[in-house]
Formats: sequence, structure tokens, C-alpha cells
Amino acid sequence: MPLAIGYAAHAADKALEYFEFDRREPTDFDVEIDIAYCGVCHSDLHQARNEWGGTVFPCVPGHEIVGRVTRVGAKVSKYQVGDAVGVGCMVDSCGHCHSCGEGHEQYCENGFVGTYNGEDKHSGGVTFGGYSNRITVTEDFVLRVADDADLAGVAPLLCAGITTYSPLRHWGISKGHKVGVVGLGGLGHMAVKIAKAMGAEVVLFTTSPSKVDDGKRLGADHVVISKDEDAMKAWTNSLDFILNTVAAPHDLDAYLALLRLNGTMCLVGVPAESHPSPAVFNLVAKRRSLAGSLIGGIAETQEMLDFCAEHNITSDIELIAMDDINEAYERMLKSDVKYRFVIDMATLKQR
Amino acid sequence: MPLAIGYAAHAADKALEYFEFDRREPTDFDVEIDIAYCGVCHSDLHQARNEWGGTVFPCVPGHEIVGRVTRVGAKVSKYQVGDAVGVGCMVDSCGHCHSCGEGHEQYCENGFVGTYNGEDKHSGGVTFGGYSNRITVTEDFVLRVADDADLAGVAPLLCAGITTYSPLRHWGISKGHKVGVVGLGGLGHMAVKIAKAMGAEVVLFTTSPSKVDDGKRLGADHVVISKDEDAMKAWTNSLDFILNTVAAPHDLDAYLALLRLNGTMCLVGVPAESHPSPAVFNLVAKRRSLAGSLIGGIAETQEMLDFCAEHNITSDIELIAMDDINEAYERMLKSDVKYRFVIDMATLKQR
Repeated sequence: MPLAIGYAAHAADKALEYFEFDRREPTDFDVEIDIAYCGVCHSDLHQARNEWGGTVFPCVPGHEIVGRVTRVGAKVSKYQVGDAVGVGCMVDSCGHCHSCGEGHEQYCENGFVGTYNGEDKHSGGVTFGGYSNRITVTEDFVLRVADDADLAGVAPLLCAGITTYSPLRHWGISKGHKVGVVGLGGLGHMAVKIAKAMGAEVVLFTTSPSKVDDGKRLGADHVVISKDEDAMKAWTNSLDFILNTVAAPHDLDAYLALLRLNGTMCLVGVPAESHPSPAVFNLVAKRRSLAGSLIGGIAETQEMLDFCAEHNITSDIELIAMDDINEAYERMLKSDVKYRFVIDMATLKQR
Repeated sequence: MPLAIGYAAHAADKALEYFEFDRREPTDFDVEIDIAYCGVCHSDLHQARNEWGGTVFPCVPGHEIVGRVTRVGAKVSKYQVGDAVGVGCMVDSCGHCHSCGEGHEQYCENGFVGTYNGEDKHSGGVTFGGYSNRITVTEDFVLRVADDADLAGVAPLLCAGITTYSPLRHWGISKGHKVGVVGLGGLGHMAVKIAKAMGAEVVLFTTSPSKVDDGKRLGADHVVISKDEDAMKAWTNSLDFILNTVAAPHDLDAYLALLRLNGTMCLVGVPAESHPSPAVFNLVAKRRSLAGSLIGGIAETQEMLDFCAEHNITSDIELIAMDDINEAYERMLKSDVKYRFVIDMATLKQR
């Protein structure tokens, strides 16, 4: 089995450190990928620190993976050695349930296989993620990346990009819609870019006056400081859709009241503790909906990558060395990143 | 001005009693109606006891009104003396906002005029509802009832009927859908009948084992005792839509988990205190929605009355005399009614 090297957490309260492990030999349908870059998602930290429970240690996080194909199995038809490719949050699913049949692998009724901390269907044991030099993935879960793309800036699209693109597409956002985006972090900054590229008028809501200029630079038509009650009230009954990217518990009613008749607010952040309960009257009074959405399917992820390539959309990133990951986690907890850390895997060397 | 007689609450803590008041002379566009029956809605009790605040006393409740036309204004085109007609929760709206323009008068951006405790745009003062012998309403807010209809059984359709019909129609319920109905009261029993008539497979959820037989008689294909955790689990990920008619705070997650991918639970009961906050994960995990809906528009109410006539749907009622209203309120609080009290207005006499 080919040796892989990476960074792993060995316990919830331990820093990530250098780790050697095996990757499976490519099967007939597998693609082996040399990882060039891996984005750093807040989920990586949750999992490494076992904040959701269920973490199997050692844990190699990372599910915003881009790189180049190094080997392909005998029956792989879509990829060749040298192709630029990506891998997101999933590396497999059951393939036969209703959700998989409709291309919604993320809602697989038997549970999709996570890129890390999942149950490896081929070699047994747990899956190891993208904080590593290589990965082997069944071709159906490999995405094509444009050969001339800025691979580092594309990496975060595999999670932050698809997580925001999918609900915007599902709820049919296009020209003529007014779309609110709550929160300007890794997800929020992608939501602003993508909603704008879809033709929407974008209203960004942030608690930070310091983010107003950046919000506009990223494409927001309006930036509202959510602590300013009068500024919020000015948008009452006006938005068709709100994409709420904030994972910390907060007052949902302040945003629900901004939706017009039949409007939907979709949550993509899952807080560890519940939000305060939304007022039923805010839903009933304008037939509003509060919804949730989880990443996106494989075909939709490819559609998103193509859409972003066409619209010159990549993530705003700060490139870091593999050794910097523990410091990056601390900075991420302080929201001190604009807007995604990406690990340059060339900095990961065998020891 | 024609004298009207009815029953009114004179204070939040007082029983309803006999009351004489004026109704306006019909204007050119008005229809004067001799009230035959009026349904008793839980909202009547909330308003009479000022449980929502804002009640103007004396308050004459009642917004499930059926009767016959006694006079019409010079420019009334749709109704003639003797016609069987109905009046629901609204007697007017602004008529020029976006919602009114789309026929959603119930979501009028300037606020619709409630059938009682509303602001009378013609004669000033407050509107008085259907616990009375006659009412004058602009023809655009009068509904047509089939001449041979069981008028007493039709009365509750004007609120309980349209409140359940509208969301079932809005979310496109038809043959092939599995629809949950939560709660078997005035709204719930209408929801079961209407969803069944729309072709859905209906699953009724009730806390009361004593209601199983009645639920099936009303048209439910399955009745689930919601306190039975195993019985609830058997419906996980299976329902396309849930209409939740329960106004008391309860665990929404137990029902959200029963929705399949893209399913919606619509709330039509507004509890005085919030429900426990629903888990975001339950929304995110299957792209589910939690929504609300408020009565229905005038055109849709007519559509509902026609639909119910076509499918022989009326409310299951207990006919009471006007004098029995205070006792009926006490029984309603104990859910001791199958499934709607309707006042026989022939029992209301001038004193």
C-alpha cells in the first residue's frame, strides 16, 4: 500500500502533528490524487477536537482538496494522469437509495462516506482527509477542475462554495431577486460572490462595521450592520431569500421579518446549541419558511465549479504551510482570516 | 341605521352577553346578510378574553358566518337577495398593495380588516363579528355558498376550512403525496378531510388513543399516537408535507424528523408561548422547511368552498344556541367538541 503522510489529531485536546499512514491501492474505479492544496474548514476543527462526538483518532481532517491525478484504475473513464481534480466533503455513498438516485448523495439515506472520519468501504477502517500528500477516491466522487485554474483559490469551493451555491440554486435565485447573506466568513464571502454572479441584488448582514468595505468589494450591493435596529427595519418585508451562514446561536426573528411574502431563510451553519426559538407569527404572517441545506450533490458540485470558473470566482484565501495548522485553528476561532486558510501541501515533507 | 343584536364581551374577564348595536346602511357595493349560523373559533375566545392584547370592548366575535342576502347596494353585481353566502375572517383590505394585487388579501401589507375587532373603513369604529343577527360587508369579501348546502356545516369552512386548504394547495398536495396532519381539533379534522379529498395518503398524529377510530372515519389512512416513540419512528423520512394544527407549544423535532428530503412542515396554530427551538440539524439534514400559513385569500376561499361542495365536505359540528356560548367556550378549552361548535342564530332573539 502506498505510504501517505499528513497531519493528524491524536486526541481531542492535542495539537495536530505529523502522521504517516497507508492509502489503499487504486481499485479499478479509483483515482489517486497528489494533493496540491487543502482548504481549512471550521468542521475540521470541530472534528479534530471531537466537538460533535464520534471522532475516531488519529484523525486527519481536510475536505477542500485539489490536486492532480497520479494513477487511475483500469476502468476509470473520466480522468487521466495529470488532470486537475478536486474532492469535497464526500468520497462515497450507498448509490442506490432515492436520494442517491436523484443525485443528492449528500442526503444519502444510508449516510454518505465523509472524506474524513467516515467508514472506508474499500479498505475498512476510517477515512483520512486532505491534510495529506495524496488520496485515493472512487472516480464518481472526483470533480474536474479547469487545468488553468488557480488551484489554491479553488480548494475552498469544494465545501464553502458548494454549501452556498446549492441552496441559492435550489431556491432558484436569479436576476430580479433580493438576497440577504448573513455573516461574512468563509461561507458568507462565497455566498456574496455566487449570489451576485447569479444576478441577485445582494444585501450582506454583518455585526462588524469593519467589514462594510470588504463586503462591497466582494460584490454586496448593500451592507447592513445587523446590530443597527433602524438599518435592519428598513429591509422589512423586502428580501426573497436569505442565506444564513452564522453557526453561533442568534436571533432568527430579526432576519425572518425581512423576508417578503413566501420568502425563505436557509440555514447552512449548525450551531452547537440551538438558536432562540423563532416566533411562529413571523412564519405565519407572510407564509415564510425557515429551511436548512447541507453541502450539495456531486453533479451539482461539478456545476458549481464550472459556474465559478465561468464567472472567475475563487475563494479569498490566506495560504499557509502545513506546520501552521494549529496556529491557523486559533486564528479561525477569532475569525481572524480573510476568508479561508488554505494549506500549501508542497510544505508537507516526509520526516 | 339598522339595529343589530348579538352577543358581546364587555371586558376580558366577563362572560359574553346580549348586546344591541348599529350596522351600517349598505353602500353601493355592500351586501347585507341575515346570519343563519356562525362557527365558534378558538380565536373568538382569545379575542374576547384579550389574550392577544388589543381587544376593543364591547367585542362581538365570530368569523365563520353563513346566511342569506337581504339587501344589496346599487352597484353590487355578484349577489342578489336570497342568495346563500358566507363571510370569513376578513371584511376588507387595502386593495392596492402587492399582496392584494395577487389575491393574497390575508397578507395585505397594510393589514386586512378583521371581521371583528378590525377598523371599520366605512362607518369608523370597530368591526363587529358574526355572533349577531345580521352583517353588512362589501361584496368583494362575500363568498358564494351553494343554495342547497348544509349551511351550519359550511360555516366552519370560512376559517377552519380555508386555513387548512390554503397551505395544502400552496404546497401542491395531490395524489401520490404522503401528508401528515398534527392534531385532531377544528382545524385538524378539516385538514384530514381536505387532504384526503386532494388524493393524499393521510397520516393523522394525535395524543389521544380515543381519537383513532374517529380519525379513520374522517378519512385518515393511518392514525399515529404521537406519544408512542416507536410508532413515530416508523414514519421517519417518509412524509412529503405536514400540516401542524396544534397551537400549544410542543416538540417540533419529533415531526420534522418524519419529513423526507425537501419536505415542509407548515404551522397554522400560533402558540401564546414559543415552541421549543427546533434543531437546525433536522432542517439541514434533509433540506427540510418549517413554514407558516395564515387563512387564505378571497378567491382561494371561494375555490375551497367549491372544492368542498364538490367533494361533499362540511365540518363535523355541534349546533348550539346563542345562550350556550359561554359554556361552549369552557368546553372548547377542554377540547370537548367534535369538532366545531356552530351557533344557530335562530336562537338569538331581541329582548
